[in-house]
Amino acid sequence: MNSTTSLTNRPLPNRESGERVPGMGKVSLYSFTVEPFHVDFTGHLFLGVLGNHLLNAAGRHSHNRGWGIDQLNEVQYTWVLSRLSIELTEMPAQYEHVEVETWVESVMKLFTERNFLIRNTDDGRIYGYARSIWAMIDLSSRQPSNLLELKDGDILRYVIPADEKPCPIAKYRPSRPATEPAVRTIDTHYSDVDINGHINSIKYVEHVLDLFPRELFEGHRLQRFDIAYKAESYLGDTLTFISQPSDTTFADGLATTYDIAIRKNVGKPEHPEGEAIIQAKVLFC
Amino acid sequence: MNSTTSLTNRPLPNRESGERVPGMGKVSLYSFTVEPFHVDFTGHLFLGVLGNHLLNAAGRHSHNRGWGIDQLNEVQYTWVLSRLSIELTEMPAQYEHVEVETWVESVMKLFTERNFLIRNTDDGRIYGYARSIWAMIDLSSRQPSNLLELKDGDILRYVIPADEKPCPIAKYRPSRPATEPAVRTIDTHYSDVDINGHINSIKYVEHVLDLFPRELFEGHRLQRFDIAYKAESYLGDTLTFISQPSDTTFADGLATTYDIAIRKNVGKPEHPEGEAIIQAKVLFC
Repeated sequence: MNSTTSLTNRPLPNRESGERVPGMGKVSLYSFTVEPFHVDFTGHLFLGVLGNHLLNAAGRHSHNRGWGIDQLNEVQYTWVLSRLSIELTEMPAQYEHVEVETWVESVMKLFTERNFLIRNTDDGRIYGYARSIWAMIDLSSRQPSNLLELKDGDILRYVIPADEKPCPIAKYRPSRPATEPAVRTIDTHYSDVDINGHINSIKYVEHVLDLFPRELFEGHRLQRFDIAYKAESYLGDTLTFISQPSDTTFADGLATTYDIAIRKNVGKPEHPEGEAIIQAKVLFC
Repeated sequence: MNSTTSLTNRPLPNRESGERVPGMGKVSLYSFTVEPFHVDFTGHLFLGVLGNHLLNAAGRHSHNRGWGIDQLNEVQYTWVLSRLSIELTEMPAQYEHVEVETWVESVMKLFTERNFLIRNTDDGRIYGYARSIWAMIDLSSRQPSNLLELKDGDILRYVIPADEKPCPIAKYRPSRPATEPAVRTIDTHYSDVDINGHINSIKYVEHVLDLFPRELFEGHRLQRFDIAYKAESYLGDTLTFISQPSDTTFADGLATTYDIAIRKNVGKPEHPEGEAIIQAKVLFC
């Protein structure tokens, strides 16, 4: 028999093999190797796996500063990922060593901005950057909490303003979501769901990339991926994917940009248009 | 533009963070932490992620002894996973530290048996064991090669017979594959495919587990998973899943064991019954 593992009262491991600088500075470093089973058919890291590493880097950075999800759960709060943007000039390849710097750029009342720099450990070349936005919610009410009031504003100690440590990629401003064409509907299963019973943030990234044909990955490179998490979905929900290609195309006729929306449970009698849960934008080059 | 990354002439990293004992003994140790994004809704490691770690452990063990896939590719050979069996008395939970021992139990002309022990790093308790069978194939002919003739039988130096280091779980003997009922057919997409253009070995594990209802994971524990890889499938193939539940059931009426078969491209006019590619058996307790 299984039971849900309690996150509370469980010390985090002190052998975080990925983190080489566990100090309490404002920036932390998380490193990993690109494993053979984590690369796509071009030999480059799956974007979803990179996203997973970024979330792990964020988790360790916040835990080491007393703001980890496990620590917050004890006081009935948790972090919720609201947006994630990744922009790369190059995707790490199989067996390469990668290190991720992460830091907090700003803290507002209801949101905090966390940035990432992604770099080759051996020669220092920069693969790209990422931006993320997180909200703190109260676990009982599921409502956002005022970050500046928690722990007497302790979180402000870790902020590095953009003029001190720039993250030179644009912020994501989701436009009005596309409503057509619906290109795929899928059921959700056991492997889609995280410990909270929600569809895993990174699984949405995988499902979005699975909308595109082989030729797009063969002939082009994924340059930027933006995703906004608008509502949660759960095991058993159906997900309908809307993909609106841009007018600009490559010489081979494939679009350079796709505006994606995901709606859950479209077509149910009580709610035929479903509910918008994800908005995303994917740019190839 | 992407191009396939060459595996040849690329030194393997010397910072294999997962491997703590890189020596040339017969047994090597590979360790990892169970990450928050790698656990299921019960808080336990996804079996597919565990399988991925086992394959990584195997890859490092063989590379460090001159038998890595990258080294073999240079001489036009590669390893092919033929069978994998995992049997667990407990599945590692979120944040636990796990270490995997791996060693070679036997080498025959066309196959080698590699075993795994999976243990909690902190208190030494054993989660379970795994067995795998691998063939060596010639990359140009795709035919099996005689392992005993390669490199003057060097591989025999690494064998530990079962009486010296036992692996106390049964070997998998696939029975006649189930042919009905077909319970799901899926298309394959970008995220399913590995660097060789094949559907990733571990993705099959995920797809098989996605056949089962939530109640099976809520009320029971996955005790054993066996899979035999009979033929390859490729991006764009359709996969049809046949799942034959056992007559023995739990008190809640769910079956304890499922015989699974996967066939590709069923229903094509030239080959209506498709081709058998995977046979698997899943045991819950």
